Amino acid sequence: MIPEKLREVLKQDGVVAIATLGQDGPHMVNTWNSYVGITNDDRILIPVGYMHRTEANIAFNNQVLITLGSRKVAGNMGPGAGFLIKGIACIETSGSDFDVIKAKFAWARAVMAVTASSIEQTL
Amino acid sequence: MIPEKLREVLKQDGVVAIATLGQDGPHMVNTWNSYVGITNDDRILIPVGYMHRTEANIAFNNQVLITLGSRKVAGNMGPGAGFLIKGIACIETSGSDFDVIKAKFAWARAVMAVTASSIEQTL
Repeated sequence: MIPEKLREVLKQDGVVAIATLGQDGPHMVNTWNSYVGITNDDRILIPVGYMHRTEANIAFNNQVLITLGSRKVAGNMGPGAGFLIKGIACIETSGSDFDVIKAKFAWARAVMAVTASSIEQTL
Repeated sequence: MIPEKLREVLKQDGVVAIATLGQDGPHMVNTWNSYVGITNDDRILIPVGYMHRTEANIAFNNQVLITLGSRKVAGNMGPGAGFLIKGIACIETSGSDFDVIKAKFAWARAVMAVTASSIEQTL
């Protein structure tokens, strides 16, 4: 279940951070709140442009951590809400998830589809 | 050396992500761009409120990854600049770094002082 407040955050400008763990240790990449999509079955879709090391890490270990937030959404401790999402990621280069993302982001070479195992509001 | 563009990003609203690696795997926490300070010798100071797991992870492995960005600063690929910082973190509960942070953020129980080993502009 994607919390309503997380959907509110996605409507605001902001930076999303995605952490993966590879054989060389953790790695982090960023995308923008406005690039993140939510499917009807509550998976999180993120267009993949570069992210080559992230892709290699997911092939090694498919667990990802994602954080995002916005100062403009009321949070637990005043102005600003943030979330920590733990999930399982899959990099897809074809199929309906990819078609949806590719139609919106022509530069996308793949889509990262994340099935959240936990979504925690941290701020 | 802290790039001028990173200082520009810190002047804008935004979410900072901090990843650490513990015995249970990677962990991520967030803070806000406006909370991040830069010392005269280019260390990065972040007030520590909660962050108990991050602190435990740093005691185990002091390498941290930090990402931050702003859609409002011109970047490498159009509007939006982002940075990936790799560094060594130390949690300090006294001393001049802590005094500076505590004066600004009364709720801070410590300061995370990060010495960057690399700063990469990713966006």
